[in-house]
Amino acid sequence: MELLNRHVTVRNFLQKAIEPKLLESIICSGSRASTTGNMQLYSVIITEDAEMKQKLAPLHFNQSVAVSAPVLLTFVADFNRFSKWCKNNKAEPGYANFLSFFTAAIDALLVAQNTCVAAENYGLGICYLGTTTYNAKEIINVLELPKLTFPVTTIALGYPEEIPNLTDRIPIRCIIHREKYKDYTEDVIRDLYSYKENLESMKEFVKENDKETLAQVFTDVRYKKSDNEFFSEKMIQTLREQGFMD
Amino acid sequence: MELLNRHVTVRNFLQKAIEPKLLESIICSGSRASTTGNMQLYSVIITEDAEMKQKLAPLHFNQSVAVSAPVLLTFVADFNRFSKWCKNNKAEPGYANFLSFFTAAIDALLVAQNTCVAAENYGLGICYLGTTTYNAKEIINVLELPKLTFPVTTIALGYPEEIPNLTDRIPIRCIIHREKYKDYTEDVIRDLYSYKENLESMKEFVKENDKETLAQVFTDVRYKKSDNEFFSEKMIQTLREQGFMD
Repeated sequence: MELLNRHVTVRNFLQKAIEPKLLESIICSGSRASTTGNMQLYSVIITEDAEMKQKLAPLHFNQSVAVSAPVLLTFVADFNRFSKWCKNNKAEPGYANFLSFFTAAIDALLVAQNTCVAAENYGLGICYLGTTTYNAKEIINVLELPKLTFPVTTIALGYPEEIPNLTDRIPIRCIIHREKYKDYTEDVIRDLYSYKENLESMKEFVKENDKETLAQVFTDVRYKKSDNEFFSEKMIQTLREQGFMD
Repeated sequence: MELLNRHVTVRNFLQKAIEPKLLESIICSGSRASTTGNMQLYSVIITEDAEMKQKLAPLHFNQSVAVSAPVLLTFVADFNRFSKWCKNNKAEPGYANFLSFFTAAIDALLVAQNTCVAAENYGLGICYLGTTTYNAKEIINVLELPKLTFPVTTIALGYPEEIPNLTDRIPIRCIIHREKYKDYTEDVIRDLYSYKENLESMKEFVKENDKETLAQVFTDVRYKKSDNEFFSEKMIQTLREQGFMD
């Protein structure tokens, strides 16, 4: 599992296009992932056009990777195609609801990760853009996504300029629970995160952000309560507009 | 990408245990997947105990695979651990909302798929249990999941008794959209799904279910509107109980 074990996020790409046949073959391998009832409730939007990238960039908070990557793949939870098939076949689809959205989102995310593994196998690098759910509404407009679809994540894809170092992970023992969830005591939490907190890069990160603790960088700068609440409202409203909350 | 391309769902397992070290190493490779801001917002609950499997089985609608697999892995969106770390470090977590749930769900699902790839690399077979979101409330009780956690999917894992044939996929050209979503006409839909509809196994499936079209098996038997609406309400209510809709 060398391929999985050496996965890193790549944010700088060579100015080298991805062969159309290679790209298709990667998505094809990605789409071998299991989906709910083999319904394949997803679509993949390929962005290569410079003008389209310029339109998407601000929706991804102008992360440079969103502009510099040769290819963006937006993974869309899609109950539109399946529902149309139902209607064509004397069947009444019942997928205008939250469970169906989440089911399609699972499908799209499993295929996204499988696509990343396939891409890395061919020497490509990837970066997930978590901003997709923040600005789903505007991304829907740019990509002209119809009702019963919703973009759940985006992958920036290209040949790496360089391979960054592996990033840290908290110890596996604290991710795994045997038979029942074992809740974390203060001592365990301290133990689990001490390695991360003591990394030079993380100490630097705290200093850069003018904070006292690493956790404060997350709560006060990167993933703030007020932002999370604002984007929660917006996401639910957009799910409603896309017909998933009828 | 032979490994991804030959992926199949396995529902019958040998009565052969998975070595604890192998299982840990598989989850470890799975956890190399990218997560939002490297926050690793997930936990994995390992079920091996027969009594625990018996408790989970009805929540997975008594699918035989839920009982016969040597191991079940429940992937949990988890903002509990991270929030506790924040509180330990003079930081006020702001993750009791829907966006944060969905962010953690993405993390858990990417790791789940990566774990499947790792498992298959070691000759294990997997089956996703999509029933996890249907009965999240009861699964939360059985696995004693605290607030700010939510089970998003389950993988049944074991050594395959036999390797089933590859299942069908709709043509890749109908999953991929270039630059913008190209909505499907009736003709395109007919063309895309005709291969599936004409498979002997699917014709058999229609006959078994006493339906006129394959689509009706999905809308009237397998994924019914009334069920979807019932489980949507239940899932949203459970998200609220878990503290993700404050």
